[in-house]
Amino acid sequence: MMTATTQKIHTHRYLLTAAQCNAQSELSPAMLVQHVIEVATEHADALGVGFKQLEADGNLWVLSRIAFEVKRYPRLLEEYSLSTWVESYNRHFSQRNFEIRGAGDEVIGYARTIWVAINMNTRRPASLDHFDFLAELVSDKECPIAPPGKIRAIDPPQMCHPYSFQVSDIDVNRHVNSSRYVELIINQMDLDTYDNFYVSRFEIEFRHEAHYADDVEVCSAFAPDGKSLVSIINLAEKPICLARTITLPRLISN
Amino acid sequence: MMTATTQKIHTHRYLLTAAQCNAQSELSPAMLVQHVIEVATEHADALGVGFKQLEADGNLWVLSRIAFEVKRYPRLLEEYSLSTWVESYNRHFSQRNFEIRGAGDEVIGYARTIWVAINMNTRRPASLDHFDFLAELVSDKECPIAPPGKIRAIDPPQMCHPYSFQVSDIDVNRHVNSSRYVELIINQMDLDTYDNFYVSRFEIEFRHEAHYADDVEVCSAFAPDGKSLVSIINLAEKPICLARTITLPRLISN
Repeated sequence: MMTATTQKIHTHRYLLTAAQCNAQSELSPAMLVQHVIEVATEHADALGVGFKQLEADGNLWVLSRIAFEVKRYPRLLEEYSLSTWVESYNRHFSQRNFEIRGAGDEVIGYARTIWVAINMNTRRPASLDHFDFLAELVSDKECPIAPPGKIRAIDPPQMCHPYSFQVSDIDVNRHVNSSRYVELIINQMDLDTYDNFYVSRFEIEFRHEAHYADDVEVCSAFAPDGKSLVSIINLAEKPICLARTITLPRLISN
Repeated sequence: MMTATTQKIHTHRYLLTAAQCNAQSELSPAMLVQHVIEVATEHADALGVGFKQLEADGNLWVLSRIAFEVKRYPRLLEEYSLSTWVESYNRHFSQRNFEIRGAGDEVIGYARTIWVAINMNTRRPASLDHFDFLAELVSDKECPIAPPGKIRAIDPPQMCHPYSFQVSDIDVNRHVNSSRYVELIINQMDLDTYDNFYVSRFEIEFRHEAHYADDVEVCSAFAPDGKSLVSIINLAEKPICLARTITLPRLISN
């Protein structure tokens, strides 16, 4: 049965309330990442390839990478939406894309994600072989942003901040919340920076899971091209995640 | 005109998605506080006493106190709602209450808030005299929890943690997000505590506004009655907020 909930493209509409805005009266990059995960989860559930279906086989979805690019962020009291579709999948992973629209359905950005199915116990890649029906649900909708690329930490970093994960950082899976990593990376630059620049592209690669009370170091350096900030969150010598942040000057508007 | 948006009781429905859950697969106290502020803002806007209307007179609403009590928190994938109404108001402040309902409209908690109108520039109390029409919008719906009481910091505290406010902690008004204070206070106890106990009552009194890069100390001590944890967030010698947290053992369920 092809119902509204088993469509190739799934859309979730939001309204940005004052309580959810950041200091620039916009949706924050971390909240955008939280929405991406939320909308992906909804669509996978509707397609019959959600956490529940994988759990039945002792498997689960792990988010491996996100890249997003926006020309601007949703603003205070703006209605916006995220639409998602599966671009491709194979035995082990799935590529899922997103289109972000603002008021009047203006397209304001795109995101790409890579999800890997792993076995809960062995933490080794699981097989998605029996989800063959997904082939019919792949969409050829365009996602005109570059895929996430390889991120290499810059040594030595130009700034390092220690952080210990707290109760409020832990998610339903007992790991650190993915959007919390985004916040820690965004926090590497100061408030004045974000008043004058916006994050036009953000990429993050999740390598290992961090847990409650883990002590990490968030280290960043500007790439030699001067255009991007490369960040790594390290737990002892183990990289938890790597990120690349590209900022552009805000246009003065009234 | 008495429309759906100018009703005495305003209700906002939510669904708790996995991305929004805390480590106990529940709505967190901080997110509940964020919802309280969101729903209050919506209703005040609908009643014609919102931030925009006050702004026209150079005034704004400041949240002074919240107290909430729950028998349990909304759970993963549960539909829940917050309903709000004005209990009373006078020249300077307004008392607004909330009822929290879970699946099947089961009442699972209540909240009380006190909002003060102040002048944007002088930061002195503003007059709400010309909002007389509010008298007709006061509801006599019952809110069967004790009002927020006086909270006195315990000296010396039993635990103190330093914290510097970051980019991701700042809200649309360029102050520290109210729900972030709640997180810092919740973080005074460890994850194991929240696995075995839940916050059954929480009270917070906001005294001063903290800003980006402010260095604070979060200090707590158990009250002599052994039932509540009293916390204070201090910026140098200035108290930013005071809170009282009461926890109860979780019942074992399957």
